[in-house]
Amino acid sequence: MQSQGKERGSVNQQGVHKEGLLYEGKAKKVYTTGDPKRLWVEYKDDATAFNGEKKGTIRGKGRLNNLISAALFTYLTRQGVANHFERLLSDHEQLVRQVSILPVEVVVRNMAAGSMAKRLGLEEGRKLSRPVVEFYYKKDELGDPLINEDHIDVLGLARPEQVGQMKSVALKVNRLLSRYFAERDLILVDFKLEFGLTAEGQLLLADEISPDTCRLWDSQTQEKLDKDRFRRDLGGVLEAYQEILNRVGGEQNV
Amino acid sequence: MQSQGKERGSVNQQGVHKEGLLYEGKAKKVYTTGDPKRLWVEYKDDATAFNGEKKGTIRGKGRLNNLISAALFTYLTRQGVANHFERLLSDHEQLVRQVSILPVEVVVRNMAAGSMAKRLGLEEGRKLSRPVVEFYYKKDELGDPLINEDHIDVLGLARPEQVGQMKSVALKVNRLLSRYFAERDLILVDFKLEFGLTAEGQLLLADEISPDTCRLWDSQTQEKLDKDRFRRDLGGVLEAYQEILNRVGGEQNV
Repeated sequence: MQSQGKERGSVNQQGVHKEGLLYEGKAKKVYTTGDPKRLWVEYKDDATAFNGEKKGTIRGKGRLNNLISAALFTYLTRQGVANHFERLLSDHEQLVRQVSILPVEVVVRNMAAGSMAKRLGLEEGRKLSRPVVEFYYKKDELGDPLINEDHIDVLGLARPEQVGQMKSVALKVNRLLSRYFAERDLILVDFKLEFGLTAEGQLLLADEISPDTCRLWDSQTQEKLDKDRFRRDLGGVLEAYQEILNRVGGEQNV
Repeated sequence: MQSQGKERGSVNQQGVHKEGLLYEGKAKKVYTTGDPKRLWVEYKDDATAFNGEKKGTIRGKGRLNNLISAALFTYLTRQGVANHFERLLSDHEQLVRQVSILPVEVVVRNMAAGSMAKRLGLEEGRKLSRPVVEFYYKKDELGDPLINEDHIDVLGLARPEQVGQMKSVALKVNRLLSRYFAERDLILVDFKLEFGLTAEGQLLLADEISPDTCRLWDSQTQEKLDKDRFRRDLGGVLEAYQEILNRVGGEQNV
């Protein structure tokens, strides 16, 4: 399927074509298209963790994250959450609205896990009495530090009303996706969102939503079906991501 | 003066007497008194930094911080800021209201310095466009991590309305003390506050306000007159603290 995708790559049906490489991140390449309002995103098989300290390649991950993210954004669009996703271009590529990504990562947590469990001395898996929203300054050289709304303001990362909007959308996404995943026997432990601004200044949910950016546990077995399998050398990364794709029914889209 | 203070120690004029040691912290010892609503605080000469990793003794520091803190709390009381300070007992001891300290440190910053400058990659001394309020979880074994209001809530450290009150009092104290210090040729760069609850549930500003808990720079020379002299091995710690005491006129109180 990957080679099929590649063949469709440079000129897609409906006249979209891939132009120059705009940006290459840890997990994706972003290209301009003939249309200044649209970008061509290619999901890579590269995996990184701990701010790039741990690196690897997981063949097939790009395809799985592209399809999972497409399925989740499509669901959120139907539920009225404005986001950048337009359509799949191939099994590892998608077309999105052009936005300027705000340098703030928004994390929502339903259970203590990962850095929060460590930072606050909580047992992993402890249910929180209510969802916790955290902001991180997206800045690799500083290790993406936790920040608060005052920091966002004095650093000029986003305007206070945009921060309020991001928080409210993040909590809405949490309500929607927690239910969505629960119906598929998955616990949404926590997840990270990014937002961007269109040329007209509209705030859109952007980036990706996938096992790279969510902690997802099987409701029955508590098995981790997300990037922690890579971070913690648990093995079976691709199988876990494939299981998520199966449960969100994303395979049918390609 | 210290021995004089000690003689007055165990039974003070007005019938207050020192009973058992209730708590010994890094910089202070706290004793019960005959009155369940009042505590006897003894300022120590011990200095610690970096969560106790760096330790030292600075003979005379306890006296200076006791007198400086007394002068600043007296000023804040006159300005209507409810706080725990009652009166000096000796040059290194003071009587305070009994409160349960909330495990949240409230930091207000007017300029980037210390951990914030490092965390956010800002130059020390950069003026912030507005005061920044930060909360830290007072927990030595976790290294007093930065937290946000959601963390305070799920950890049950304080109720949301108490958090709002602490933030608003902290900003008021910042306005008052920034002006107070400016009139004494000092820049209030940042400071840390602690709050406590009386048995009746009243929130009071507590702990100490001194060069151990504030960054204070000379307005003309930018010279550091605070604990950074100890943290960074700049020398002249006691002289700097004495200079602060001179400028706040605290010597006259004993």
